[in-house]
Amino acid sequence: MTPAQEARMAMRRGEWRGPTVYRVPGYVQTNLVVLAKQEAYDFLVYCQRNARACPVIEVTDPGDPEPRHSAKGADLRSDLPLYSVYRNGSKEGDVEDIRSLWQPDHVCFLLGSSLSFDEALVRAGVARSEQVWAYDTDIQTVPSGRFHGPLVVTMRLMKPGQAVTATQLTSRYVYTHGAPIHFGSPEAIGIDLGKPIFGDPLQEIPSGMVPVFWACGVTPQRAALKSGVPLLISHAPGHGFITDISSDRFCIP
Amino acid sequence: MTPAQEARMAMRRGEWRGPTVYRVPGYVQTNLVVLAKQEAYDFLVYCQRNARACPVIEVTDPGDPEPRHSAKGADLRSDLPLYSVYRNGSKEGDVEDIRSLWQPDHVCFLLGSSLSFDEALVRAGVARSEQVWAYDTDIQTVPSGRFHGPLVVTMRLMKPGQAVTATQLTSRYVYTHGAPIHFGSPEAIGIDLGKPIFGDPLQEIPSGMVPVFWACGVTPQRAALKSGVPLLISHAPGHGFITDISSDRFCIP
Repeated sequence: MTPAQEARMAMRRGEWRGPTVYRVPGYVQTNLVVLAKQEAYDFLVYCQRNARACPVIEVTDPGDPEPRHSAKGADLRSDLPLYSVYRNGSKEGDVEDIRSLWQPDHVCFLLGSSLSFDEALVRAGVARSEQVWAYDTDIQTVPSGRFHGPLVVTMRLMKPGQAVTATQLTSRYVYTHGAPIHFGSPEAIGIDLGKPIFGDPLQEIPSGMVPVFWACGVTPQRAALKSGVPLLISHAPGHGFITDISSDRFCIP
Repeated sequence: MTPAQEARMAMRRGEWRGPTVYRVPGYVQTNLVVLAKQEAYDFLVYCQRNARACPVIEVTDPGDPEPRHSAKGADLRSDLPLYSVYRNGSKEGDVEDIRSLWQPDHVCFLLGSSLSFDEALVRAGVARSEQVWAYDTDIQTVPSGRFHGPLVVTMRLMKPGQAVTATQLTSRYVYTHGAPIHFGSPEAIGIDLGKPIFGDPLQEIPSGMVPVFWACGVTPQRAALKSGVPLLISHAPGHGFITDISSDRFCIP
């Protein structure tokens, strides 16, 4: 078994319930969004219209929990460490398995995560950012049907020369958010450093460092929540799905 | 007005009915597929599953003929030089305007065309291929709903060193088919050089030249036809839609 398959089996057996951040390097990690077929078209168009935030790795057939093209044999109802359940736009709680919630019209969306390129940045000599922060911006995404909301970004701190390397490198990772959408002034895109979605609040950017911002996979999750759909299941933050796709492969299979 | 806007207006006024191949350089050209909303979800999933052949530049809202994000103010019912109309999987004919065929549930898909990168290849010193051929291959696409069929490719002839440059360059043009899917032996992917979809039949590859193959936007059109949907409207071959997007921009707006 590959490390990706081993990780998924450990999750299926309930032996892995923790985060996947910096775990199982070399494989594309994804965000998960599960919706009823009825909502799936508008959501897929939303992903297309906001492709840098929502790079679609796979869409399963209705009622089929197996991601046949990115992780053959996997079961998206059990092979993630932790799931979050939302009803009518409010969080109900986290669960370890969604087999009891699964409906025959459920469609799974796997969206590439920037967690996939952190290891590549380190290999290229870009010192690992002390944290990866996520922030709301004042940039509005392009709506589709009931789906709309702000662009969410991740922020990494690095030296300017490393930011150039990071831009060159991530430009190629189109299916895990691609090139940065901004660097420098957080205020220019409406960010309040003291109010991250995750990560510790910051007073200011440390001297000599530049903040670099990538579109974030929390964006479509937030849009799906704001839409108030009756039932939405996603991965719990930081608890991603590990595919079989090499993170250095620049296209989807 | 920009050259792209001028071209579209000339088409709208009926003054431009010819091909767009090698015309209006610098702007992304797209293929057009118009389908009823009822078919749109499976078709969009088909495009996601075969993203190298079907890079989606824009999906319009049902009943809205304006591609608001890639060519504001344009009308997809009149701003292409020529359209092909297919009913139940058979070609009915070519028309210059589709306003009389337009239905309130029609959705337009704009799919990036490799015609967009030919000029960039020339700028990079890759001698223009004498022709751009299109061929069926024996590679099957990944189906979605009723949509299925073979991968269609374009073929360009160049010297091996130019093929390296072309691979480097087109790797960046993700939304106009990206990197080649194959080079060298046509037989290896089931191609009969004597039976092109377009271009003149060939006996053999000229000495010192290598054939380089890119996934082609005819692929989804062929799949839509094989599916036998009641009504499908597309651009006529070689008669593309000119967007406002710079062909050197590596992402969609």
